[in-house]
Amino acid sequence: MATVRLEVSQLHHPTSAPHAPLSADERLLRGTLHAQLDAAIAPASIALVGASEQANKIGGRPLVYLKRFGYQGRVYPINPARELTQGLRTWASLASLPEVPDMVIVAVAGDAAIEAVAQAARLGVKLALVMSSGFGETDAAGRAREQAMVAIARRHGLRIVGPNTQGLANFGNGAVASFSTMFTETEPADGPVGIVSQSGALSVVPYHLLRTRSVGVRHVHATGNDSDATACEMAAVVARDPDLRLLLLYLEGLPDPWNLAQAARIARRRGLPIVALKSGSTPAGQQAAQSHTGSLATEDRVVDAFMAQHGIWRVRSVNELVDAAPLYLKGWRPAGRRIVVISNSGAVCVLAADAASRAGLQLPALSADTREQLGRILPGFATTTNPVDITAALLSNSSLFGQILPVIADDPAADAFVIGIPVAGAGYDVDLFARDAAAFAERTGKPVVVAAPQDSVAACFRARGLPVYVTEDDAVRALAQFIGHSELMAQVNATGDALDGRWADAGPRRLGAGAASADAGADPAVVPGADPAGQPSPAQTLLNENDSLRVLAGAGVPVVAHRLCGALSEALAAAADIGYPVVLKGCSSLIAHKSDLGLVQLNLADAAALGRAHAAIGAAARSAGLVLDGMLVAAMVGRGRELMLGARRDPVFGTVLLVGDGGAQVEVLPDARLLLAPFDVDSVRQAVSQLRIAPLLGGFRGSPARDVEAFCAAAVRLGRWMEEGDHTVLSVDINPVIVGPVGQGCLAADAVVFQAV
Amino acid sequence: MATVRLEVSQLHHPTSAPHAPLSADERLLRGTLHAQLDAAIAPASIALVGASEQANKIGGRPLVYLKRFGYQGRVYPINPARELTQGLRTWASLASLPEVPDMVIVAVAGDAAIEAVAQAARLGVKLALVMSSGFGETDAAGRAREQAMVAIARRHGLRIVGPNTQGLANFGNGAVASFSTMFTETEPADGPVGIVSQSGALSVVPYHLLRTRSVGVRHVHATGNDSDATACEMAAVVARDPDLRLLLLYLEGLPDPWNLAQAARIARRRGLPIVALKSGSTPAGQQAAQSHTGSLATEDRVVDAFMAQHGIWRVRSVNELVDAAPLYLKGWRPAGRRIVVISNSGAVCVLAADAASRAGLQLPALSADTREQLGRILPGFATTTNPVDITAALLSNSSLFGQILPVIADDPAADAFVIGIPVAGAGYDVDLFARDAAAFAERTGKPVVVAAPQDSVAACFRARGLPVYVTEDDAVRALAQFIGHSELMAQVNATGDALDGRWADAGPRRLGAGAASADAGADPAVVPGADPAGQPSPAQTLLNENDSLRVLAGAGVPVVAHRLCGALSEALAAAADIGYPVVLKGCSSLIAHKSDLGLVQLNLADAAALGRAHAAIGAAARSAGLVLDGMLVAAMVGRGRELMLGARRDPVFGTVLLVGDGGAQVEVLPDARLLLAPFDVDSVRQAVSQLRIAPLLGGFRGSPARDVEAFCAAAVRLGRWMEEGDHTVLSVDINPVIVGPVGQGCLAADAVVFQAV
Repeated sequence: MATVRLEVSQLHHPTSAPHAPLSADERLLRGTLHAQLDAAIAPASIALVGASEQANKIGGRPLVYLKRFGYQGRVYPINPARELTQGLRTWASLASLPEVPDMVIVAVAGDAAIEAVAQAARLGVKLALVMSSGFGETDAAGRAREQAMVAIARRHGLRIVGPNTQGLANFGNGAVASFSTMFTETEPADGPVGIVSQSGALSVVPYHLLRTRSVGVRHVHATGNDSDATACEMAAVVARDPDLRLLLLYLEGLPDPWNLAQAARIARRRGLPIVALKSGSTPAGQQAAQSHTGSLATEDRVVDAFMAQHGIWRVRSVNELVDAAPLYLKGWRPAGRRIVVISNSGAVCVLAADAASRAGLQLPALSADTREQLGRILPGFATTTNPVDITAALLSNSSLFGQILPVIADDPAADAFVIGIPVAGAGYDVDLFARDAAAFAERTGKPVVVAAPQDSVAACFRARGLPVYVTEDDAVRALAQFIGHSELMAQVNATGDALDGRWADAGPRRLGAGAASADAGADPAVVPGADPAGQPSPAQTLLNENDSLRVLAGAGVPVVAHRLCGALSEALAAAADIGYPVVLKGCSSLIAHKSDLGLVQLNLADAAALGRAHAAIGAAARSAGLVLDGMLVAAMVGRGRELMLGARRDPVFGTVLLVGDGGAQVEVLPDARLLLAPFDVDSVRQAVSQLRIAPLLGGFRGSPARDVEAFCAAAVRLGRWMEEGDHTVLSVDINPVIVGPVGQGCLAADAVVFQAV
Repeated sequence: MATVRLEVSQLHHPTSAPHAPLSADERLLRGTLHAQLDAAIAPASIALVGASEQANKIGGRPLVYLKRFGYQGRVYPINPARELTQGLRTWASLASLPEVPDMVIVAVAGDAAIEAVAQAARLGVKLALVMSSGFGETDAAGRAREQAMVAIARRHGLRIVGPNTQGLANFGNGAVASFSTMFTETEPADGPVGIVSQSGALSVVPYHLLRTRSVGVRHVHATGNDSDATACEMAAVVARDPDLRLLLLYLEGLPDPWNLAQAARIARRRGLPIVALKSGSTPAGQQAAQSHTGSLATEDRVVDAFMAQHGIWRVRSVNELVDAAPLYLKGWRPAGRRIVVISNSGAVCVLAADAASRAGLQLPALSADTREQLGRILPGFATTTNPVDITAALLSNSSLFGQILPVIADDPAADAFVIGIPVAGAGYDVDLFARDAAAFAERTGKPVVVAAPQDSVAACFRARGLPVYVTEDDAVRALAQFIGHSELMAQVNATGDALDGRWADAGPRRLGAGAASADAGADPAVVPGADPAGQPSPAQTLLNENDSLRVLAGAGVPVVAHRLCGALSEALAAAADIGYPVVLKGCSSLIAHKSDLGLVQLNLADAAALGRAHAAIGAAARSAGLVLDGMLVAAMVGRGRELMLGARRDPVFGTVLLVGDGGAQVEVLPDARLLLAPFDVDSVRQAVSQLRIAPLLGGFRGSPARDVEAFCAAAVRLGRWMEEGDHTVLSVDINPVIVGPVGQGCLAADAVVFQAV
């Protein structure tokens, strides 16, 4: 296996003409955008400030690990009080070294850490790995110290990983600049998995779990406070390692999605799957958007939308982060969700079918020919349908397994296989089963997973290269994740160009703040860790309904026929033009929830009813102390399905589109999906199909199928308008959009719009 | 630890006067109801028909196991071809034995198996354990052979476990009458867990998983085809073992819930938790009930309702079946759902909080006093809120853990604790952590779970008696199951008397077929395995809406004002009495879905509208070729929340009540809960509160809170009427029940009733 170091050095020398100006996109894919950070994974030399003789101290362990894991670069312990540290010549200061090291590890505390960073910066070091804590993770004073340290580094072009990090580890080249206890406890082995984590513990727990399952892991990088270089930047660096076949991420915050987008893009070009565990609560910056849409759009759903858009599989636990790894590493390309289950236990067949159903996998029928052939091999009380139950007859005849597998392999119905061997051992030829199953996997080229609770049985299958799980539930869930992620990646690949176009030159200010303040020329590498949540949110004002509907119409969203009126005579004239029945609403830019104040009168059948409503709304406004901008007469739209459509500018992720169930209950019974730009009808349609109420849009019990296409088209128009338009609108919240029967379109019946002032 | 055998013999000699007639209830609790089945778990002597010299044959393994696991009773190998089998004197036939054995294991095939059962029956053997397959699990002929075999046994009072079973195992007394390979592969140890399973594999997989976690298991019983004695009966037998602290069940079918109710009752009296994995598809017998309610009420939801009613925790996978076992065995009594998380990793704190939130556990705030004390102990960058993050400072100072635990133990906020140690080892005093944690658990008396991915760390905590999981997600889910089950058991205990009253004398015909055909005197032990699904479903007829509403009114459900009319003049008179607006519907006992045929006209404001509607419905009926029973004029009920209420007689479980969301979409977007008799307002209210749409009933955005109490009261009246009434109604399906604002009650607006003819 080639070392990363070689690969990185190749990447440093692009073969194209050096004078051709490179776009950020080209620089990204050629590896020059993050070139300096290559020193994080392949440093030619490492100095350690605060070197310690004691192997279990923060300043001692990196020296132990660099030696133990075969680092071939130059290592310089720095400690003015010592001449030798762990047998290595020790230097008094960074300035006294015979060369400028690529990486400086800072393992001293407080002001000494800042001073070490400053020295490294002045010397022209590429990367400082600051293990010291007591910075941004503590208090305001700590944050100030951290910002000061980063400012010094940036002045000289020094990149920082950390502070408050347990370090970086590359087992491909032995550059293990880490003080994690885990590498003492759990023996490493180089392999095709990379882990990048903001947390030290959550970098080594997945490492440990993978190693105990005999999976090799190359990269284990913890980035700590992400004061300068972030976990997402490191992910982009690691994603370029050509030996990698799976990249795992642990994130607590995602302030720089553009860096993750770059990592995802590199990974996508290489077919490298990324699985991410994103934990934690909503950042304060998300609370800036205060419309309905904003309050529904928690950061977590934006993260969901972002991950899905970029083909990253988001998981909720460490178990899910690692469980499907053996499947990813096999290089299988699943064609679909149809699985065949084979077991020597009928109960395992039933449980696997239950698990498949829960996980959204199907059990297709086997062909008549397959069944007939199985019937000739298996005893009469066995089952030849899917699941295939060999029964306990396997105890008497271990060859049954090997006999039926080729028959099933030839059946076109299956995309993947689950083999369950709940009990075997004495009396069974388990190694024969494993050989037969491996040959079967080879023959079909399709994913095969094994459920075998007994270690002895699992070991046989694992030795033959098959992914093995304890229970059928574990096996099916891992398979479903692998298949689902493969589908997602294929889908993102199909629409990847538009995605790349959006995110290629994206930086913090570009996405969040609208075209007016976009800074397309900003190089994300210059301000990579900037915290957009710290930007002041723009002052905003609510539009009244009439103005809101005008905005929508301008954005290309069909709106209900309406007219803003003053006196009753105007309203009567408007209603005559629009046609009864009508709706009358008090119109004001001071309130978003009109109906709560009695300012909405529905289904007014004639002039008399309109007159009464006009008087009632006027009285309601007066009793609320409200001066209305006028009254809005609108067509009473016939019975349709009420949906919700919203758009806003997220300070970090740019334009966010929301599609969901509509009506008055959306806050107590939310049912919505978010999408991020760029928008297209296919992804909106898919989001709508994932709503809980989606079955109601298809027509049922006398209710016609709804014009979902019209809704999706309106959503795309709104999203693109928000994204591309030259305007000051900050958020749009349309509820309800009344969706008519197929072919009859949809109409926005009410809307709340905020714009910047 | 006392052996079960002694305990069973004590149970055989009740101390009350022998002449006092005992109710089935008393017999159940005294252990005489299933006395004969005690031979399944504590036989004084065992004969094995088909004894084999070969240790890995079905007829060989039980002899190996009885010897290896120390069975002290008499063992009689039967094989006319041998004089010695595995060193034991071997007999030619059952008849030639010097005594009548308690248990006969049948390990011969086909007719020889039936002949062995017949011989055992004639000799007066208590129990035949039929391992032979080729019976009911195969085809019609096999089922006939099985029924014939059972008939012979019953004639002589012989009980059968099996056929097609891998056997019974009691590691408390060495009565291991099983051929499972697992007992060769995974070393047993007696302990407080019992497993009863219809499947052989699913009896030993939980055994294996528990044993690999060092949990002792006493009972591992597989019941196979349940032709006579069922898994549920065996559960009742095993539940009487006084040493048991956890009973695990695997079921594929549940044709005899009354036996499981008995097991649950015994367990409840002893505080013994039962966890059940029920897999599989809907039995054909369930499809008899054809009303809407019936079609929505899949068997699986009835099983959910039954398990919950009896305090049995239902799980969906083998993992969930065993994962919480260490918690159950500690004897903790959790007081609530508030957990405190303590870790040396901030990421684990966040992930544990995420997991707790998903699992419905809360993280309470620690008191100011606690925080102040923690602040004095921990470094400044640690977190003293809940979760408590000790940080990597633990590496420098292993005593921090032991110092903070007593402080947290004294805080009243916590009901349970999650300790996460993702990384430890060299440099940490892990054994000190474990000792400190154990002392902490002892001091608080509250549940403590540990998440420790490293085996070395886990072993330290496990050695101190604490439940240890790999990840915080595993730990929190197990804790949530344990707390949830404890809550469920407390709740069932609070209402247990009514439950006992219902199920005490329940048998197959009693529950399913209504009062008219009830056979309260039937002893369930006489027909314990009878298959109610095989009973013919009664012929049934649909009532028209008028008759349906009359039935509801008789049952005590408030119904909308209505009158059945013929000519328009009658309808006009009725509408005048009821008051406009009204609804007009075509009334027929031939159709359940009137609106699909245009037979419903809503919101008729005056006589003219009523006249037009009358004509339209008449025309619609004629075009559908339908002769109406008349037209129903009903009050147009104002806007209320539409719910659904149903009741039916399940052939196995008796009266089933359904409460759910109402309206036309209930079939495409189901949202309903089932309840089983006996019914009370508390459990209906709880079921309603678990509906997805429950938040809509509480009042929101201009919609008032709904009169849920009135709905619950109506549901209880309907359920009790179905359960107790002397009538022929088979199913009632009310949709919608219109639920008005609080204090304004609810009204059944439409209903479909089927009754027996």
